[in-house]
Amino acid sequence: MRVSVIGGGSVTDETYETAVAVGRELGERGHTVVCGGLGGVMEAVCKGAQETGGHTIGILPGSDRSAANDYVETAIATDMGNARNVLVVLNGDATVAIDGSTGTLSEMGHALDFGRPVVGLETHDVPGVEPVETPVDAVTAIEKTVGDD
Amino acid sequence: MRVSVIGGGSVTDETYETAVAVGRELGERGHTVVCGGLGGVMEAVCKGAQETGGHTIGILPGSDRSAANDYVETAIATDMGNARNVLVVLNGDATVAIDGSTGTLSEMGHALDFGRPVVGLETHDVPGVEPVETPVDAVTAIEKTVGDD
Amino acid sequence: MRVSVIGGGSVTDETYETAVAVGRELGERGHTVVCGGLGGVMEAVCKGAQETGGHTIGILPGSDRSAANDYVETAIATDMGNARNVLVVLNGDATVAIDGSTGTLSEMGHALDFGRPVVGLETHDVPGVEPVETPVDAVTAIEKTVGDD
Amino acid sequence: MRVSVIGGGSVTDETYETAVAVGRELGERGHTVVCGGLGGVMEAVCKGAQETGGHTIGILPGSDRSAANDYVETAIATDMGNARNVLVVLNGDATVAIDGSTGTLSEMGHALDFGRPVVGLETHDVPGVEPVETPVDAVTAIEKTVGDD
Repeated sequence: MRVSVIGGGSVTDETYETAVAVGRELGERGHTVVCGGLGGVMEAVCKGAQETGGHTIGILPGSDRSAANDYVETAIATDMGNARNVLVVLNGDATVAIDGSTGTLSEMGHALDFGRPVVGLETHDVPGVEPVETPVDAVTAIEKTVGDD
Repeated sequence: MRVSVIGGGSVTDETYETAVAVGRELGERGHTVVCGGLGGVMEAVCKGAQETGGHTIGILPGSDRSAANDYVETAIATDMGNARNVLVVLNGDATVAIDGSTGTLSEMGHALDFGRPVVGLETHDVPGVEPVETPVDAVTAIEKTVGDD
Repeated sequence: MRVSVIGGGSVTDETYETAVAVGRELGERGHTVVCGGLGGVMEAVCKGAQETGGHTIGILPGSDRSAANDYVETAIATDMGNARNVLVVLNGDATVAIDGSTGTLSEMGHALDFGRPVVGLETHDVPGVEPVETPVDAVTAIEKTVGDD
Repeated sequence: MRVSVIGGGSVTDETYETAVAVGRELGERGHTVVCGGLGGVMEAVCKGAQETGGHTIGILPGSDRSAANDYVETAIATDMGNARNVLVVLNGDATVAIDGSTGTLSEMGHALDFGRPVVGLETHDVPGVEPVETPVDAVTAIEKTVGDD
């Protein structure tokens, strides 16, 4: 399936490693990562996914697709600013939120609004978002939920 | 100033009355309401604003501007679905959130992301959103914050 | 009705005067102008419309609504770049094209795609666009077409 | 490079074959196709590209990515209606227009507006669009133009 991974564009080393681990787990299990294409969690999850053979899609706020991080395989430019947040979660079957600030919050709202299952790792406490403890738990939880559909 | 009012599209009578009161207060103090143009909180706040001479703008998700509620003075069709949520908060100088579900949550995220002050009446508990008790408090709080800029 | 007026953002004095005349005619007959909110034809048509009491809406490509020209009554910021062109023609019941370059061409395509009647003054020669000779002819032609619906 | 291919969603067998041939030529020369993801020219060009090993991206107007034709490798849902036309041409380095109606015209306008070279096969006669005679000529012409940059 396709999994949207959302989170901070500028993160601590520890959060970066968490996002790499989520990416590795997704790639290993054959899933494709969809993200906002920039730095921080977006870069880390693409890096992890590529290490284990996963495909990565980055949907960018600007008009220049070369702004994508080095681990994005398919970059989509939008030139639509924050409206691209809507596309990030629309294009996944489920969402994993890692850390993140107000942009991430907007994406959590959109994901829930589209009826996507959302799991959260060290992120906003939002009703409807299932908190998980580890990267492996995150991927297992969404596989279970989407499989239930 | 322009004030974005966001909230549930289908609400209890009590919430409807709260939103009408917010609209009246905004109109009375010479502010323009920006909202998503549909029912519930969006309709109520436009109704209240019109009663006290306020202007009302409704930014709609669909392509047909006649879908706007009866109290919208200027309807803008977008045909962009939930991406219109971004425009609702971008086009106000501050945001009042009343009740609401996941769509409202996405708008709160976008409003904070754009650096807009956000106050909340009986809505999601989100860091950065100032909880207020009454419609009058809501309008007073945003006037104070925007005035402080 | 609402009439989208599209055209060059930087024009000769002669074209500017043509657009002012279109605006005056629209305002005089009680129509509202929708445009892209910036300079050239967009500014001229709003100026003309305001002189005769017409309402004016400007839908802007950027995020700052203060970028609107001085004759826009209701400015809508989009931060969506050229995707705002779609909104300019979606929000009118008919379109008048005056002069203009590639951006105007994209708007003519979208207007026709939405089934809007389009008349052209000194602009691209496009199948489906009715060429007219004068500002008065332009407004008369669209009134006739929309009235025919 | 990435090449946006635009054209009618419902075409004659002859036009379909032309678009397949363009797709084959693009795939053979190592280019990626970007298109609107639906039928007609969009389907044909993806089919041709896949036959020769080319990658294909389909940017859809709706919210359901399963609406993409069978030859789209990476489908991007937008739920933004005709505003997705902007993304189709923004995401290519050059544009090939084949046949097509008003939607294609809007895309030609946007492509020129973004400064993308545009070549046309049996399509609208638009200033700035280089008419070509054959699928091979189309691909050769854009390679020459983009290479010139």
